[in-house]
Amino acid sequence: MNLKSPKYIQISEEIISRITSGELQPGDKIPSENELIKTYKISNTTARKSLQEIELKGWGTRIKGRGTFVLNTTEDKHLTRTLGSIFTTRSGFDANLIKEGFVPKNIILEKSILDTGISIEINGHFYIIEGPVVKIHRLRYANDVLMKDETRYISLKICPKINMLETSKAYFSIYEEKYKLKIVDMKQTLSAVIFTQKTVDNYFESPVPLPVFLLDSAIFISTGKVVEIEKSYYRGDKYKFLIIAKPEIFNP
Amino acid sequence: MNLKSPKYIQISEEIISRITSGELQPGDKIPSENELIKTYKISNTTARKSLQEIELKGWGTRIKGRGTFVLNTTEDKHLTRTLGSIFTTRSGFDANLIKEGFVPKNIILEKSILDTGISIEINGHFYIIEGPVVKIHRLRYANDVLMKDETRYISLKICPKINMLETSKAYFSIYEEKYKLKIVDMKQTLSAVIFTQKTVDNYFESPVPLPVFLLDSAIFISTGKVVEIEKSYYRGDKYKFLIIAKPEIFNP
Repeated sequence: MNLKSPKYIQISEEIISRITSGELQPGDKIPSENELIKTYKISNTTARKSLQEIELKGWGTRIKGRGTFVLNTTEDKHLTRTLGSIFTTRSGFDANLIKEGFVPKNIILEKSILDTGISIEINGHFYIIEGPVVKIHRLRYANDVLMKDETRYISLKICPKINMLETSKAYFSIYEEKYKLKIVDMKQTLSAVIFTQKTVDNYFESPVPLPVFLLDSAIFISTGKVVEIEKSYYRGDKYKFLIIAKPEIFNP
Repeated sequence: MNLKSPKYIQISEEIISRITSGELQPGDKIPSENELIKTYKISNTTARKSLQEIELKGWGTRIKGRGTFVLNTTEDKHLTRTLGSIFTTRSGFDANLIKEGFVPKNIILEKSILDTGISIEINGHFYIIEGPVVKIHRLRYANDVLMKDETRYISLKICPKINMLETSKAYFSIYEEKYKLKIVDMKQTLSAVIFTQKTVDNYFESPVPLPVFLLDSAIFISTGKVVEIEKSYYRGDKYKFLIIAKPEIFNP
């Protein structure tokens, strides 16, 4: 009886040690079946099982017709949010967190009516919502960690009495379902800032300086009017933003 | 002879002083023609000229059928770049800076060929360019200030000998014009980090901590293959990113 591991395990372990040592880097090609057969004088079954073992253990990924490649195993703990897509925005902040296994919590800091209206500058253009406007400033938590400091301004002319509705539902679905609005455009900018303990109105209680995203956004309905302006801060050590181009917008 | 300014100038100056004092805030509505007529007992011509004067001096903007609103006059010195649009990406980094009145400068730190290929993780997916790949690491300046620390990896299988071309042209136009490739998709993520003087490989010689955007990007051609992977750092105190949604992508 042979107490040593099977040949394919030995070979896979040798290759994995080349990955953990850094000799093979994420994205590098792992030797092919044919190369393994030559190098180790093994059968093609053993070679195939070696590569499967590397994949099973999460060190590589097989790409059809191209080979097996080293995966990046340093886990990225950022939550990713897609910008420029109403389809994904529609699902709402809390619903996304729940899907990711977090317990969302909201604290409303301010809910007030501004008679004077509100404006936002995006790429040199000013977008205005005439008053009255409801301002909702709230802190959004995941498992008791503040993730987003969110301020929305919503037109009460376009959405009468929206200030009377509960705030737990995604506003997008309220615009569409309750007010029958057609959202036709969104313009958003992302800035990067540093929040320290000296920053005024910094709610993120971090002892170390934090990179923070500032998201400015305007949402347009079919009449061309702005229904909502948002000015929010996202913890940069927790979030990442994804932008996907679509063929339709390549030649506007 | 009356040495005082004309009535409409006096009225416009009074309103502008209400803006500079902060009584009227950006986005606030400036009193309408009718309100001015009532308040100051003036003709509608004078009222109209008062509002025009405020607009001319850059303190307000008139929105048809809605009135005149206070403009935000704190100048935003960030350069804005559009993400998710090949149309704007096509014009290239240097060309954009020149359009904005800057003198661009490039320093190539590394230009090498990687036989092993390269991978990138975007939103949990790994995208791979098989080797050989040309890696181009360069520093991009505007008026001698480092704006972007850029690293691109380009497939030499898809773009043979692209490493032999000069690097001053936008790569997008090279892919399209020289290699006749059709760019069909782009996936990009933005992260926010803080660069201090202790950060390894921080080329942004800033004495104070800087907010920095990390842009990860993969560019796809019509065969589904990745032609270019980019991993670049943008100075967060100089840049802002714009994302525009288009109706076509609302229901993918």
